[in-house]
Amino acid sequence: MIKKLLIANRGEIAVRIIRACKEMGIETVAIFSEADKEALHVQLADEAFCVGPAPSKDSYLNFSNIISVATLTGVDAIHPGYGFLAENPDFAELCAECNITFVGPSAYAINKMGTKDVARETMRAAGVPIVPGSNGIVEDAEEGKQVAEEIGYPVIIKATAGGGGKGIRIARTEEELVKGISVTQQEAATAFGNPGVYLEKYIEDFRHVEIQVLADNHGNAIHLGERDCTIQRRMQKLIEESPSPAVTEDIRAKMGEAAVKAALAVDYSGAGTIEFIFDRKERTFYFMEMNTRIQVEHPVTELVTGVDLIKEQIHIANNEPLRYAQEDITFEGWAIECRINAENPFKNFMPSPGKIDLYLAPGGFGVRVDGAAYPGYSIPPFYDSMVAKLITYGKTREEAVARMKRALGEFVVEGVHTTIPFHSRMMEHPVFVEGDFNTNFLENYTIIE
Amino acid sequence: MIKKLLIANRGEIAVRIIRACKEMGIETVAIFSEADKEALHVQLADEAFCVGPAPSKDSYLNFSNIISVATLTGVDAIHPGYGFLAENPDFAELCAECNITFVGPSAYAINKMGTKDVARETMRAAGVPIVPGSNGIVEDAEEGKQVAEEIGYPVIIKATAGGGGKGIRIARTEEELVKGISVTQQEAATAFGNPGVYLEKYIEDFRHVEIQVLADNHGNAIHLGERDCTIQRRMQKLIEESPSPAVTEDIRAKMGEAAVKAALAVDYSGAGTIEFIFDRKERTFYFMEMNTRIQVEHPVTELVTGVDLIKEQIHIANNEPLRYAQEDITFEGWAIECRINAENPFKNFMPSPGKIDLYLAPGGFGVRVDGAAYPGYSIPPFYDSMVAKLITYGKTREEAVARMKRALGEFVVEGVHTTIPFHSRMMEHPVFVEGDFNTNFLENYTIIE
Repeated sequence: MIKKLLIANRGEIAVRIIRACKEMGIETVAIFSEADKEALHVQLADEAFCVGPAPSKDSYLNFSNIISVATLTGVDAIHPGYGFLAENPDFAELCAECNITFVGPSAYAINKMGTKDVARETMRAAGVPIVPGSNGIVEDAEEGKQVAEEIGYPVIIKATAGGGGKGIRIARTEEELVKGISVTQQEAATAFGNPGVYLEKYIEDFRHVEIQVLADNHGNAIHLGERDCTIQRRMQKLIEESPSPAVTEDIRAKMGEAAVKAALAVDYSGAGTIEFIFDRKERTFYFMEMNTRIQVEHPVTELVTGVDLIKEQIHIANNEPLRYAQEDITFEGWAIECRINAENPFKNFMPSPGKIDLYLAPGGFGVRVDGAAYPGYSIPPFYDSMVAKLITYGKTREEAVARMKRALGEFVVEGVHTTIPFHSRMMEHPVFVEGDFNTNFLENYTIIE
Repeated sequence: MIKKLLIANRGEIAVRIIRACKEMGIETVAIFSEADKEALHVQLADEAFCVGPAPSKDSYLNFSNIISVATLTGVDAIHPGYGFLAENPDFAELCAECNITFVGPSAYAINKMGTKDVARETMRAAGVPIVPGSNGIVEDAEEGKQVAEEIGYPVIIKATAGGGGKGIRIARTEEELVKGISVTQQEAATAFGNPGVYLEKYIEDFRHVEIQVLADNHGNAIHLGERDCTIQRRMQKLIEESPSPAVTEDIRAKMGEAAVKAALAVDYSGAGTIEFIFDRKERTFYFMEMNTRIQVEHPVTELVTGVDLIKEQIHIANNEPLRYAQEDITFEGWAIECRINAENPFKNFMPSPGKIDLYLAPGGFGVRVDGAAYPGYSIPPFYDSMVAKLITYGKTREEAVARMKRALGEFVVEGVHTTIPFHSRMMEHPVFVEGDFNTNFLENYTIIE
């Protein structure tokens, strides 16, 4: 049983994990970089230790310093949050070697899903629908041309070691393909240490729909419905919701079944997300990738299912069998999340780090704020720019949207720019309100001049 | 249809009502006293007008100034919140005369329930269980002695015009009774302008359990389950929860049925609460009083039923039929509310008005904050001392309590004393955690030395 847990992360997700631990009676150990001395997660944890200078590689990615703190404080487990070490199989392995429970899947599952062409092949074998494309790595332009001929242009070139919108290029012609393969290979070699690329048919008119799964160490897996993350800017999610305005009960059941298959195919354990391309025209879906960790947008699923995903991660890490059967999972109401980033939406979303002078989060019925900011807090320039996640819940999508608009109107953050004005306009945009859009929403509509 | 609404109140309930209006697309007009210029409700409303100096009688109770603002701004309706004019039949009458919708019941219903001995008789006639006692007003000590003889000591002497814990005296002997009647009559004459008192058997070992009802102008009434408000200090509620740890499904159904009868007996319209004495030994219940308005603790009902009570009040005031049938109301999970007051629990709950230097409300899954404070806000000394209501929701009572403890630990209010430390200790008190206690909890156990 986990009695003491180290959170190998920072920001709102570190706070989120500390909250769950406190409610479960688990002692918490925070780590922080020199830039994060004043951070909220440091203040809320039972103990906190500096693990290095501001750059992530020296602190939040510093294996040996983190393991040292874990050993010194005698924790039973490490929760990696998202980002940083969450999908690093070597770190998961190291934890296992040190007899520390890694709150997440095995290194094997992380590896299988982290290598994109391997994941694709695994999914194909497991009967999960995949986008038509190459069988594994494309060696050169010649092979690429053949594949593209078969599946038809446009195609998408993907670095097998990429993910989260990185290492991706679209080719609409043979010429673009030939050039794209070689450029992506070079970039991937530099960025990920692996030049491998593969091809997929490029579906232009799609929604990003993902399924939350939970799997235990005893061969059980269930799904918790979908999240719709179609509103993205440069492949970074900005607004997420559950359920999806495009998903029917029938599609949910099929996607859920495919997601459970995907998890079982890699002996998955813990909370994970299968991301799908939802083809709007064909109303069909394809496996995109699996994120083998908790996700930023997990609260919308928590609000419509009532399941506390962080607590379930910990129960699973304790080797407990899943506490829910599939039929226990029911969906009620609608939840929307807006990521409140310290960025200036009037200046092309330029990051806006600095001191928050005044901070007042909204409240009231159906409003949840997962944040790590406070009045007087200085947002350091070294990390992602998320200040808080604002999540609203209502009986219907209409109510959740109206509530979000109301809550955004109350949210006071002074001293830095934030994306609050962007989200306020989104909540009034007729196409967003109607719910019928694809991932090109922000290319197709001007929200802020 | 209500398009513009005046909120004849201040503090968190004014903010709560503004939030509901914004989500419904209704324009809002705030009123404020000279002491409340900087209040949050003034900042959040679309328009705001000063209605007089700090003393309530000159501002928040000032009929003519409030009606003047209502007329000048062209509102369709006035929501009175709780306290102030919420249970004033003359104000409800005046609104009707001015063709302004009063969001609440008729003057008739307010009157019937506001006069305690009349309410008792009305309930008896309607078949709602009442505590054994006198038939209406007790004229003098002689009549009182006779009644007390019949029902047995101890008895409780109540001013018919009292309520909310005021105008009440307990008598355990004939001597105490004789003295108590005359003292209570004198006090009631001074405090309420009505010397009438009546007698009831005093039930010592009871829980305060109340039922939320909604009734429309078309003869429909439903109930939304119970709230348990047993934790009180000097008859002021401090902690409320729903459901009640003492109420079974069978008792809930019976109490709910009695509450609906009570509402129908006075042609009730809107949201109201029937308060019951729940006799712990006999596991039976008796009508205590009806509050003909929204209550402070309404959020715990909202969280377990999903029904937005303020929105329903407005729909009902619009003459719409109830949007829920009894069978639509289901109960899920557990909700607890702690009243965070600016009082010093280490100094006998002495009020602690003044400037809030630092303010950071807790957040995360299952946490709701209904407040009216912000960093830099000065709590004026003229009104009640509530800074915020902290409400937590969980799958079980155990989770709701653990979450409350966690949330209280995060709540930062600097510059004034608050009841946060008191509530933190309550959440760890074994008897509170166990759930088996009566209204004498704070007399029986020492929480803070």
